[in-house]
Amino acid sequence: MDTTSFPSDLDIASAATLQPMDEIAAQLGIGPAHLEPYGRDVAKIDLGFLDEPHDGHQAKYVVVTAVTPTPLGEGKTTTSVGLAQGLQRLGKRAVVALRQPSMGPTFGIKGGAAGGGYSQVVPMERLNMHLTGDFHAVTAAHNLLAAMVDNHLHHGNALGIDVRNITWRRVLDVNDRALRNVVIGLGAREDGVVRETGFDITAASEIMVLLTLAKSLSDLRERLGRIVIGYTTEGSSVTAEDLGAAGAMAAMLKDAIKPNLLQTLEGGPAIIHCGPFGNIATGTSSVTADLIAMQGSDYAITEAGFGADMGAERFFNVKCRVSGLKPDVAVIVVTVRALKAHSGNYVIKPGKPLPPGLLAENPTDVEAGLPNLRKHIEIVRRFGVQPVVAINAFPQDHDSEHAVIRRYCNGIGVRTAVSRHVAEGGAGARELAEVVMEAAHEPSSFEFLYPLDLPLEQKIEAIATQIYGADGIDVSPGAAKALKDYERLGFGGLPVVIAKTHLSISSDPSLKGAPRGWRMPVREVRASVGAGYVYAICGEMRTMPGLSASPNAQRIDVSADGNITGLS
Amino acid sequence: MDTTSFPSDLDIASAATLQPMDEIAAQLGIGPAHLEPYGRDVAKIDLGFLDEPHDGHQAKYVVVTAVTPTPLGEGKTTTSVGLAQGLQRLGKRAVVALRQPSMGPTFGIKGGAAGGGYSQVVPMERLNMHLTGDFHAVTAAHNLLAAMVDNHLHHGNALGIDVRNITWRRVLDVNDRALRNVVIGLGAREDGVVRETGFDITAASEIMVLLTLAKSLSDLRERLGRIVIGYTTEGSSVTAEDLGAAGAMAAMLKDAIKPNLLQTLEGGPAIIHCGPFGNIATGTSSVTADLIAMQGSDYAITEAGFGADMGAERFFNVKCRVSGLKPDVAVIVVTVRALKAHSGNYVIKPGKPLPPGLLAENPTDVEAGLPNLRKHIEIVRRFGVQPVVAINAFPQDHDSEHAVIRRYCNGIGVRTAVSRHVAEGGAGARELAEVVMEAAHEPSSFEFLYPLDLPLEQKIEAIATQIYGADGIDVSPGAAKALKDYERLGFGGLPVVIAKTHLSISSDPSLKGAPRGWRMPVREVRASVGAGYVYAICGEMRTMPGLSASPNAQRIDVSADGNITGLS
Repeated sequence: MDTTSFPSDLDIASAATLQPMDEIAAQLGIGPAHLEPYGRDVAKIDLGFLDEPHDGHQAKYVVVTAVTPTPLGEGKTTTSVGLAQGLQRLGKRAVVALRQPSMGPTFGIKGGAAGGGYSQVVPMERLNMHLTGDFHAVTAAHNLLAAMVDNHLHHGNALGIDVRNITWRRVLDVNDRALRNVVIGLGAREDGVVRETGFDITAASEIMVLLTLAKSLSDLRERLGRIVIGYTTEGSSVTAEDLGAAGAMAAMLKDAIKPNLLQTLEGGPAIIHCGPFGNIATGTSSVTADLIAMQGSDYAITEAGFGADMGAERFFNVKCRVSGLKPDVAVIVVTVRALKAHSGNYVIKPGKPLPPGLLAENPTDVEAGLPNLRKHIEIVRRFGVQPVVAINAFPQDHDSEHAVIRRYCNGIGVRTAVSRHVAEGGAGARELAEVVMEAAHEPSSFEFLYPLDLPLEQKIEAIATQIYGADGIDVSPGAAKALKDYERLGFGGLPVVIAKTHLSISSDPSLKGAPRGWRMPVREVRASVGAGYVYAICGEMRTMPGLSASPNAQRIDVSADGNITGLS
Repeated sequence: MDTTSFPSDLDIASAATLQPMDEIAAQLGIGPAHLEPYGRDVAKIDLGFLDEPHDGHQAKYVVVTAVTPTPLGEGKTTTSVGLAQGLQRLGKRAVVALRQPSMGPTFGIKGGAAGGGYSQVVPMERLNMHLTGDFHAVTAAHNLLAAMVDNHLHHGNALGIDVRNITWRRVLDVNDRALRNVVIGLGAREDGVVRETGFDITAASEIMVLLTLAKSLSDLRERLGRIVIGYTTEGSSVTAEDLGAAGAMAAMLKDAIKPNLLQTLEGGPAIIHCGPFGNIATGTSSVTADLIAMQGSDYAITEAGFGADMGAERFFNVKCRVSGLKPDVAVIVVTVRALKAHSGNYVIKPGKPLPPGLLAENPTDVEAGLPNLRKHIEIVRRFGVQPVVAINAFPQDHDSEHAVIRRYCNGIGVRTAVSRHVAEGGAGARELAEVVMEAAHEPSSFEFLYPLDLPLEQKIEAIATQIYGADGIDVSPGAAKALKDYERLGFGGLPVVIAKTHLSISSDPSLKGAPRGWRMPVREVRASVGAGYVYAICGEMRTMPGLSASPNAQRIDVSADGNITGLS
């Protein structure tokens, strides 16, 4: 394949002939009563579909995860789309459930989350901008709560909120580093109370992940009420319910909880919903999206962010605990370039050309990177789920390099397939679809890593040692005190999320492969009580990106007839 | 009528049986090719409808304005909706074009902009929250530009922007006083450049009014490029185009430029689009909405914010100049309580009960308030437009009080009607509809107040003296210098908007009736170059509201089946 003449993602997406939405919905058994069109070629799915009588079929639940990615990503989204297209070509009812891309990166760096090449979700422009406004609804609900916090302070602070201990920030769906740390309430007396706070990107809002984990509108309403915005000087938690904000927030989100229906380039259904951050949140699409996918298909393919240590672990321990769904297969996406990078011989930086040696035929370096793949396979097996290794083929790959991966997987009894879905669409994912079907029919024995009644610190330790391979954890005094406080406040029964780098299985981004002999420092802990988890911060976590010196926004434009250029 | 048993706006709206959107659209001659459904009972109208062959009919263009309002408002929106319903009952093709309500007031104070009683636009919950996301698109495009301004500073400020002279702030669609004045860019070196700025409510965004004045997507694109974000240290203007942001902003707004179609309680079409602030912006719905209304009806009824001195003047001088449309009739909404207030004998405060004397039968006080009505009639006549006085009847009114207004209008040859559309719907607006039809068939001779080539200061003076009745204007030295700078920078040919109180025809909110013997101070001037006007600040202008001690958000909730309570 000549990459110079390969059409751009936008060109491919624009050339697609889209199927009518009622036909896409019909593939899932969704009739007009549960379908709400939202502009051309996009619809929302009413949750009432879940109350329809179930025909008794047992869908297979497939999560797509990856090895520890390079900063460029290894193609989980394209593989998810390609796998669905491949299964459809084999005559199966398959649907893919993905996250909605954030507009921050769309205008920041090249690359959305719509897949790529001939394995994309369309319409791509709608997907990458606004879609049906769910992100905007999250932004608005989040900032209404923030305004009500500051309004409460302004009008006398009857609840006794400690202004130095307000954890609720504001959010915007834009890469804007200048908003990371701000002082608000300046001006005159009527302009509020002065205090320091900041903005995160909307994907990092607790409401975004709360929306992914809510099973119904009433569940959403209750979770919103439980959101902790800060603490009183006496150390009690103050909630959105205490401020009387949760009802209005739920009203603002009543349509955002409905998953969005789009289609693959080959006319299969694609459910797009929510987009929580992969580092501090679950990094998955929603429980409601997956429930609908399971109700309406034979193969529900859902994506979990970053590597299996990150997204898949949270998918298993947090999302599946809420949904009650049991995954059958975990597809681990691997690329030749990622394994070469895990050899430790190359450094890949976003925005820079790949090191030339990385593109040369070098099965030895691929081999040297295999321990990282091995570790992700072990993680998946630890949860009792069948692993399948999907080699996402690039035109620069060499057969000898693919052979190294295949041989290794065969040796440890793991199914593997080379997938050429980016270049060839569903036809290129046929082998992958076949091995996923085989794996899905093996017996599975899904289990959580830890019971919820374990103390919070032991849950963190279980993930660090049993999933990441750490020797142990070092909890800072502040974090230890906070964990105690959380247990006192009744948050001890929540699952945990580890906020760490996605560029290593360890908490040190420079450690490649499958690091051993390290301890995980727990610098700080925070509680997303509304979403329903406690998270431990084990590294530098940026929750508001910045724009580069040459942001992608400068290359985006729209013609007089509404055609967008410059998206990728 | 017993007000205690009169159902709430939400109850009335919820009980309505809505007509299918394709039938609503068909009333305007809009077929499926130009209609994009957006969720239940809402659609967007593609601007391609304006390119359809015109059948040659000549629609009448009716603007609804008012006397100087009390802080409670006098019911322009209900009267606009009621008039359209009344005309429809007389068998006429009529459509109403209104602004979209801001979510700030929806969650702040009781009262939206959807009309009231039996003259409302439905679905009310959609109208008051998100609608099709146009406000959110404005917020996102506005804040992308802001992020690109600060990003430009961060990456070396090649354009030489003076950080002390950046006029572009940020916006959110929420009442949040704590964001009026903020310091951003705090933290470490990689967290941007420290500077003071602030947030306005989205309705006050220049992009909101720009969107109302853009005639097409290409016009929108060009106007976005002309937005001035600040000035260099040498005094040159820096635009969104200079920053390379305008194309991406236009892409984000490509659907927001399409007006939204909803319906009245009586199944007539209602076009809802944009919601620019009435004090610093035009306070009207969009040019595209009105062009569609004129193409698709015999009577296009559009609303202009506040009194005729404010909204109607800008409607005539700014909006009609862009659209090329010539208004036939201006309906001046008056209430008994407003005229009583203009007697100077009562003080009405929002959130407080009305003074009891105001509700007693008192034609003398109504008479004492007539000079205010007279002045608004004169303003409308100054533009060569036929005035019609609509008495928006309240249950507490007395016939003797209506008679005072009727007698006065008859004496000066102005048509008048009592309208009971809030209590009775279109049936209650029958008399109003009839006199509007009569007035619309009188010859009209619409003209602008000033030519665009007049110096900016003389344009401001023309409005102050000829519309407001000031003796002259007093321009501060800073404002005088800025006006000279604007002419040097090429903005001299723009029309002007006066940002002043809406509670008096003068610039002093305490002066009721038709004030004489005063001069208008021009404290400061600003340029909305993208929107296409210069505005003069002649009073305290708040562009970010605050929430009260008991905001309406605390009374809003949603049930498990999605029914919203607490909206009004």
